[in-house]
Amino acid sequence: MISIRVVLVEPQYEGNVGSVCRSMKNFGFSDLVLVRPCKLDNFAKAMASHAQDLLASALIVDTFKEAVEGANLLVATTGKPGTHFNSHVRYPFYNPKELREMLEDKSGAVALIFGREDYGLPNEIVEKCDVVAYIPTANEYPIMNLSHAASVFLYELSGFTGGNVALAGREMMDRLYGHYDEMLDSINYPAHKKDKTLMMLRRIYGRAMLNRREYYTMMGVLHEIGLALERAKKR
Amino acid sequence: MISIRVVLVEPQYEGNVGSVCRSMKNFGFSDLVLVRPCKLDNFAKAMASHAQDLLASALIVDTFKEAVEGANLLVATTGKPGTHFNSHVRYPFYNPKELREMLEDKSGAVALIFGREDYGLPNEIVEKCDVVAYIPTANEYPIMNLSHAASVFLYELSGFTGGNVALAGREMMDRLYGHYDEMLDSINYPAHKKDKTLMMLRRIYGRAMLNRREYYTMMGVLHEIGLALERAKKR
Repeated sequence: MISIRVVLVEPQYEGNVGSVCRSMKNFGFSDLVLVRPCKLDNFAKAMASHAQDLLASALIVDTFKEAVEGANLLVATTGKPGTHFNSHVRYPFYNPKELREMLEDKSGAVALIFGREDYGLPNEIVEKCDVVAYIPTANEYPIMNLSHAASVFLYELSGFTGGNVALAGREMMDRLYGHYDEMLDSINYPAHKKDKTLMMLRRIYGRAMLNRREYYTMMGVLHEIGLALERAKKR
Repeated sequence: MISIRVVLVEPQYEGNVGSVCRSMKNFGFSDLVLVRPCKLDNFAKAMASHAQDLLASALIVDTFKEAVEGANLLVATTGKPGTHFNSHVRYPFYNPKELREMLEDKSGAVALIFGREDYGLPNEIVEKCDVVAYIPTANEYPIMNLSHAASVFLYELSGFTGGNVALAGREMMDRLYGHYDEMLDSINYPAHKKDKTLMMLRRIYGRAMLNRREYYTMMGVLHEIGLALERAKKR
């Protein structure tokens, strides 16, 4: 089973928040988290229309970390995808259909994350996400309205139940990346390359969508490498 | 080549009209026709954002007939599809993906028609359309915001070029239906069944998306039936 949580990071217009609620209810979703939202007043309610229950039950938090707690997979949505395989913050990226196909056999909680209306998600957040998603748009005007973009993703993921392959948990993946981080230090990996490489690793494991068993095996491999390094140093 | 014209029938909120313009430009479309729209003022412009050129160039007309002039295929969108194969006004209906697949090898002008925010397209208009399209939504709240619904259709049809099979023209199809109408009278078809049968014929030929050659052959068949009936009557 795949469950979808919608996360809006610093939405600036209450009408958009209400509109996203409506679209979520239209497509059968109800888990909404707002990170430092604008004031939500009558216009938000008006735009939510018959989804005011969803607006009222939205979880409001102060940090991105709280917003994605418990989610197995973090999907950053962007209107500005990367342009080169050599920069991994926003590359590779997947369209909504591809995202659904990647999740077809998976089970877990997926956080679908949208940024501010004016400049989208900042790199600091995109970097923390597993997968980057992008709606193909016209070059002439690629930036979509927030609730339109949400509608397109929710349309694609509507009625979608996923499969049985349990995605590794958030803490697991963070531990894996932390382990890589330490390992790169321990082997004196060139400092100027390290961040880029860690970012690339996150994009690789993010799109591979590790299951729990794969996570344990990967951690085992890293652990064995660590032990071998220690043994080698002692000689 | 498939070209898409968006037709909004009596939109009531200027914000929605602007929002549809933005979404059209996001997905690379520019042909917009408004039938008896509400007043379009500053809020429409604000919601159109960088698509104000599209808002300014929209064709405004008084009648549905003018709005679909020159279109080969009329697609009625609805949030309330039919529930039974025995009532053909809104049945059968196709989701956006199916609509795109049906158009894959076709060439012609497709009018994508959206109704008012409060009650959608009236039956009198749906009856005149060839195909009914519907976005699958949750039973609990199936009615989408106008610009969200448009965004989903435009997303599916974005970058889509169609094929080479030229769709029969509007006047051709109207002539075909008119011919059937006369034929049903001439064979004393039960009056109480006639409208329903004509509606069913429109749904059949609508989803079959006749090309020009098929149209001429169909007209030839009807013509021959007419001649045979006359010969038979003279005996």
